[in-house]
Amino acid sequence: MNKIGKIFHEGFGVNDLGHLTLDGYDLVELAKKYGTPLYVVSEERLKENYRRMVKAFSESYPGKVVFAYAVKANYTLALVKVLVSEGAWAETFSGPELHIALLAGAKPENIVLTGCNRLEEDFREALQLGVGLIVVDSVSELQKLNKVAGETGVKANVLIRVNPALKIPTHPRIATGVRGTKFGLDIQSGLALKAFEEALKMDWVRVVGVHTHIGSQILRIEPFVETAKRITSFVSSLNERFGFKPEWLDFGGGFGIPYKREEKSLNLILLAKRMTNIIVKAFKKSGLNVPSLLFEPGRSLVGDAEILLARVGNIKDSPFGKYVFLDASTNHLIPALITNQYYEIVLANKVNKKPVEKVNFAGPLCFTGDVLAMGRKTPKVEVGDVAVILNVGAYCKSAYATHNAYPKPATVMLTKSEAKIVQLKETLENIIGRDVW
Amino acid sequence: MNKIGKIFHEGFGVNDLGHLTLDGYDLVELAKKYGTPLYVVSEERLKENYRRMVKAFSESYPGKVVFAYAVKANYTLALVKVLVSEGAWAETFSGPELHIALLAGAKPENIVLTGCNRLEEDFREALQLGVGLIVVDSVSELQKLNKVAGETGVKANVLIRVNPALKIPTHPRIATGVRGTKFGLDIQSGLALKAFEEALKMDWVRVVGVHTHIGSQILRIEPFVETAKRITSFVSSLNERFGFKPEWLDFGGGFGIPYKREEKSLNLILLAKRMTNIIVKAFKKSGLNVPSLLFEPGRSLVGDAEILLARVGNIKDSPFGKYVFLDASTNHLIPALITNQYYEIVLANKVNKKPVEKVNFAGPLCFTGDVLAMGRKTPKVEVGDVAVILNVGAYCKSAYATHNAYPKPATVMLTKSEAKIVQLKETLENIIGRDVW
Repeated sequence: MNKIGKIFHEGFGVNDLGHLTLDGYDLVELAKKYGTPLYVVSEERLKENYRRMVKAFSESYPGKVVFAYAVKANYTLALVKVLVSEGAWAETFSGPELHIALLAGAKPENIVLTGCNRLEEDFREALQLGVGLIVVDSVSELQKLNKVAGETGVKANVLIRVNPALKIPTHPRIATGVRGTKFGLDIQSGLALKAFEEALKMDWVRVVGVHTHIGSQILRIEPFVETAKRITSFVSSLNERFGFKPEWLDFGGGFGIPYKREEKSLNLILLAKRMTNIIVKAFKKSGLNVPSLLFEPGRSLVGDAEILLARVGNIKDSPFGKYVFLDASTNHLIPALITNQYYEIVLANKVNKKPVEKVNFAGPLCFTGDVLAMGRKTPKVEVGDVAVILNVGAYCKSAYATHNAYPKPATVMLTKSEAKIVQLKETLENIIGRDVW
Repeated sequence: MNKIGKIFHEGFGVNDLGHLTLDGYDLVELAKKYGTPLYVVSEERLKENYRRMVKAFSESYPGKVVFAYAVKANYTLALVKVLVSEGAWAETFSGPELHIALLAGAKPENIVLTGCNRLEEDFREALQLGVGLIVVDSVSELQKLNKVAGETGVKANVLIRVNPALKIPTHPRIATGVRGTKFGLDIQSGLALKAFEEALKMDWVRVVGVHTHIGSQILRIEPFVETAKRITSFVSSLNERFGFKPEWLDFGGGFGIPYKREEKSLNLILLAKRMTNIIVKAFKKSGLNVPSLLFEPGRSLVGDAEILLARVGNIKDSPFGKYVFLDASTNHLIPALITNQYYEIVLANKVNKKPVEKVNFAGPLCFTGDVLAMGRKTPKVEVGDVAVILNVGAYCKSAYATHNAYPKPATVMLTKSEAKIVQLKETLENIIGRDVW
């Protein structure tokens, strides 16, 4: 916890001017130098988040534990590169994501290809590139992969995605391991078992483990613990029925981060202890060697490492509320629209000032729902103030929407030696570059 | 109404192969030739939609009526060009939209610039380019515009946006003329009147009328009629208080279109009659000349002129539902996520076949909410079938989201002489082109 407030991680501070800083860089100065809106990502925080996770699991598990960064969370290349340099594998869900991971330096064998609607050409490309692990989501995909692998002459290392059918405490649109979602094969009804049975007979598929992913932004330990129980129990049936010995258990992602002041961080050390304890015991009981563990964290690595700077452009007061208009919009905060995700907003140039009013932060887009936050307590807001939207690292830039053709902002990365542009602002040429008229 | 079903407009048909056609083009063939997902836009339908609207109003109004196409609805350049060629003005809400309108051939004087968070440079550019009408949303914007116009030496023709504070029968995120939204100045509390009072004294602002916009996708006439009443009543107060004589009344957009089989089209002829009747009477009563009318239709011009073709890639059946995976996703149907907009989906190669099963159409993206439709009755679905998602012309491509870095599809325009690519498919180079790493 940071002394300037619970919502700020250790990288934040306040300088002599009373300005909010990140890794020592004055955010008001960055807004002035690069213009707004502007994404700012902290290299240090990315590294810390990765190292903290590795430590939590390596202390409690006797086997290998791999973290494959879920590229979908934020596919800014420089950011992916930082995590890959730290040792993270990459989890990719599309052709472009796969290529981004490769460009960021991920070795093909350290790439996990997931998906739910792969075509033959997707599997062919992955096999030809030497992708390490392929996760299949359906029998339809499994059969397609076996066929393509045969044609390609490259045996596919496969994880089969199963659905543990739990109750997941998160927004329904990102709750995945719930019965009846589009993902995975249901365990209880026997669909998952049947898929393994079929896969184990295939010539060009080498089944190396079980994959599951229960959802995103989960702040409680219990769903992960329950998943470990169900997956190890399923593995034991697989072993009894088919003599199957998994080399990998892949638990996907889902580790939540606090967005609101009152939310508590997920205790990764405890989570790791409880999950690995279940796995070690269950495998011992079945007389199996402990498997390598795979996790696919996205949000928990990048979510709090990136912020968005915006400037107050106009203010409109009325008896029905005060609107503060920013140059950032819900284009930059798609989760606010899709899963009603809350984002904290502070004024970088007034971080030490006391809240004296309640305002709505609105964006410049042409629809009523383009409001970033309602009824937030702030110091007196004035035109020109620099607003900081915290924790935008995950599923914001990567799900950018193009309402009103507003250009995508630049991204600046803060490193120990310099603040540098790692993604340029979009130009009109970028926006209309694919038009033929 | 089309003989093949109420949901299809007159441009659709079925050919000898039993394939769905649009403007005579076989949609199964187009999917094969250009690949999927693919947007297909009908030039004819765009023209018809525009002409039908012009006719409805010109028959019932003695004054001038202008339709400024709301570029935000779909800013594919070739499409904007078709509407501009037909005589439409352009309504733009951002710098890029303004430039797109110009590139599509709109004369600057036929451009309406709206917005809610303009900066000085936005107003400066508009004035220097000679934009016809500028709509201001707040006193803060008004003062800024007066200042910039003075510096530029170009007097600004201004409409002031007011909020009639109605109940609007549409999704709250696109209901605009409701008390307490971010848009416009409230009439009842006197805020709107005060803004006019201030504006009428300004040296570099020439107030030419009143602007309002009550929302989007409204399928009932009453809210528009009620708006006409409130605006004309407001104009009469303006006239009494300040002797103000509006040249323009701008009613924004909001004309809905049917997305579901059971939804009825908005009767534009009746709407035009009832609105214009109120306006003519009120102006006569005040002894004023009838004003020119401005509308800013988006969805009603383009919504049903564009469709999205997608191919079935995988099918997953379970006791909990059958998932049919398409290569189109909610990236292409953002309104399905933001306003729960319903989209009709049919199989182009099985349009004459009877429905025999209920399926969920899912996309390839990595989140549970990436489902395009749940529980839809269809003929027996098979891998390779071509699905057609109807009525995607408005706020789909223009609000495209970039989840999982999937490339944006190409757009083909159907003209009388040819089917031609008017927007290229996005490449990996487009996706990572702004990255510096």
